[in-house]
Amino acid sequence: MRAAVLFEIGTQTLEVRDDVTLADPGAGEVRIRVHATGVCHSDLSAMTGVLPQPAPFVPGHEGAGEVVAVGEGVDKVAVGDHVIVCWNPPCGDCSACRRGQGNLCVNIFFGMTMTPHFAIDGAAVYGFAGSGTFAEELVVPWQCAVKIPDDVPYEIAALIGCGVTTGVGAVINTAEVEPGSSVAVIGAGGVGISVIQGARIAGAAEIVAIDPVESKHEAALRFGATKAVKPEDADAAKAEVTGRDGFDYVFEVVGRSALVKQAYGLTRRGGTVTVVGAGKNDDTVDLNMFQLFFDNKKILGSYYGGADPRQEYGRLIALWRAGRLDLEGMITARLKLDDINQALELLRTGAAIRTIIEV
Amino acid sequence: MRAAVLFEIGTQTLEVRDDVTLADPGAGEVRIRVHATGVCHSDLSAMTGVLPQPAPFVPGHEGAGEVVAVGEGVDKVAVGDHVIVCWNPPCGDCSACRRGQGNLCVNIFFGMTMTPHFAIDGAAVYGFAGSGTFAEELVVPWQCAVKIPDDVPYEIAALIGCGVTTGVGAVINTAEVEPGSSVAVIGAGGVGISVIQGARIAGAAEIVAIDPVESKHEAALRFGATKAVKPEDADAAKAEVTGRDGFDYVFEVVGRSALVKQAYGLTRRGGTVTVVGAGKNDDTVDLNMFQLFFDNKKILGSYYGGADPRQEYGRLIALWRAGRLDLEGMITARLKLDDINQALELLRTGAAIRTIIEV
Repeated sequence: MRAAVLFEIGTQTLEVRDDVTLADPGAGEVRIRVHATGVCHSDLSAMTGVLPQPAPFVPGHEGAGEVVAVGEGVDKVAVGDHVIVCWNPPCGDCSACRRGQGNLCVNIFFGMTMTPHFAIDGAAVYGFAGSGTFAEELVVPWQCAVKIPDDVPYEIAALIGCGVTTGVGAVINTAEVEPGSSVAVIGAGGVGISVIQGARIAGAAEIVAIDPVESKHEAALRFGATKAVKPEDADAAKAEVTGRDGFDYVFEVVGRSALVKQAYGLTRRGGTVTVVGAGKNDDTVDLNMFQLFFDNKKILGSYYGGADPRQEYGRLIALWRAGRLDLEGMITARLKLDDINQALELLRTGAAIRTIIEV
Repeated sequence: MRAAVLFEIGTQTLEVRDDVTLADPGAGEVRIRVHATGVCHSDLSAMTGVLPQPAPFVPGHEGAGEVVAVGEGVDKVAVGDHVIVCWNPPCGDCSACRRGQGNLCVNIFFGMTMTPHFAIDGAAVYGFAGSGTFAEELVVPWQCAVKIPDDVPYEIAALIGCGVTTGVGAVINTAEVEPGSSVAVIGAGGVGISVIQGARIAGAAEIVAIDPVESKHEAALRFGATKAVKPEDADAAKAEVTGRDGFDYVFEVVGRSALVKQAYGLTRRGGTVTVVGAGKNDDTVDLNMFQLFFDNKKILGSYYGGADPRQEYGRLIALWRAGRLDLEGMITARLKLDDINQALELLRTGAAIRTIIEV
């Protein structure tokens, strides 16, 4: 079987191998034929060691495909089902799941991240975050296979599998943006564009995209931003849009402490900072204790859309069908698995919103 | 006129003077005869310079009394009205006020803090936060005089003027605690007790009070805490009450970065940290950037109850009338203005929940 493999954390390029083997699905597991996978910044973060991940491993976690085999006891999904690969699957039974925060369930997730199903020459190869969608097929717990209608294109389903759920969910579930609000979004990559679309869907009146890469400004405006500026012009945009107040909602979609501080400063007293970006363990943001109570602001972490991903997938498909959520437009390139390193380069340079790998 | 005065920031004791003069109320101002005032930690913070305050000044900001004179153009309150002194009065017209966040209105507040109405020998004496209730009378903008029914005792009204609004409001308006929740409260002084009462009113199932002063544990339990522990036993209490999860809601009611960190650690993933304590400008809390997004927690600043204080006063009086909110029980001593330094000492040592000065 073919898959793209990273042999050592810190390596810049993936090796596309055709001698990867895959275990049969065990009890409670399914095998999925991947048809499309997005290339997401978290894949890079795992490759560079920013996100913890055992190696060697197959990156990729934003994918969709078809169930081709099921293990013992699996009765909720069947061979032939079209599915989104949910890399953080809710167990459905714990306290987090019962309160609708299935995105915070770790009962399945922690185990699957440490259970390699791939191998080369008999040596274990992990999948990123327990999945690993840069492969023709993968084996995951059945809860990772979230059934979707057959008519949803795989590339659309793949995008929903991570970045779009993370971005739109941060707006709708975490920040709960209200119609008429003023919004600023720091970082206009794939997740940032999803935040912008979420803010537009939620009825925000003003959406200011902030990104140092000028080529991303046009895309931000196309997806719903009412203004796009470089970071050094953010304060001027704040004054222009909100007067002396500051934005009602600011989203940090990069994961850097300096940008969380900037987000805090751009937010009005009583407003909401939402941290969507995946930050590093050795980075800390320092917040002034006087301001913290005096400003009455909210600082909200948002992980994988802030809600149960199974619920979110359905909602996002409905928004896409209704023409409210533009997913086709987010796909800036369609490449093959052999071109995976080119896809990573498009991500690194900021040239891509989302590249889809047709596996 | 008699008033307690601090002549220099950093001085430990107040001087009770009987030669303080008070300006007549100007246009839009009222003069209030203070009948009762609470002694609050913010008074100490202003005396020590933690909270910014020009000197010399009359401390005290949590008071109630009767309107004895009104200036030109005042038609919303009249001589004889019983009022709570609102030290951060909403202007009623700005964007913060219009969205119901009158606690964040600064249109009147900033001006009044810099406008001394007291004097000694013709030299200006400020009022703390623009009010200064450790005085027989004070002059404030009419918006600071919030009318209440005549049958509410002044000492009850005084408590509502700051600490109780701040504590109960943090629970109801900022954190929005839900029935059945698990709650921890760090700091069981007057505001902490108000948070505990707010959590009980909001229907929390578990309320754990955390305070190093053992004598405060009994009071915490009396006002609704289901458990009271010292800070070093907080982790054990968390495990006992919430298993591996952590508390749904944790309140920091002291204003120290180390305690905000502790609050963060005691909160479950997806849970809510509310910072009620008035922190210092030179103190910063550092938050791990990986945890910030991964934990999906909320960190909420709460200032003066997080809502319009005029609205809150009415709600708290209703809760008090209904027997849901115990305010009489919070008064641990009733002293005279001459005993003000004794009252401050009761606060410093943690012996008081609230001392009322009968002016």
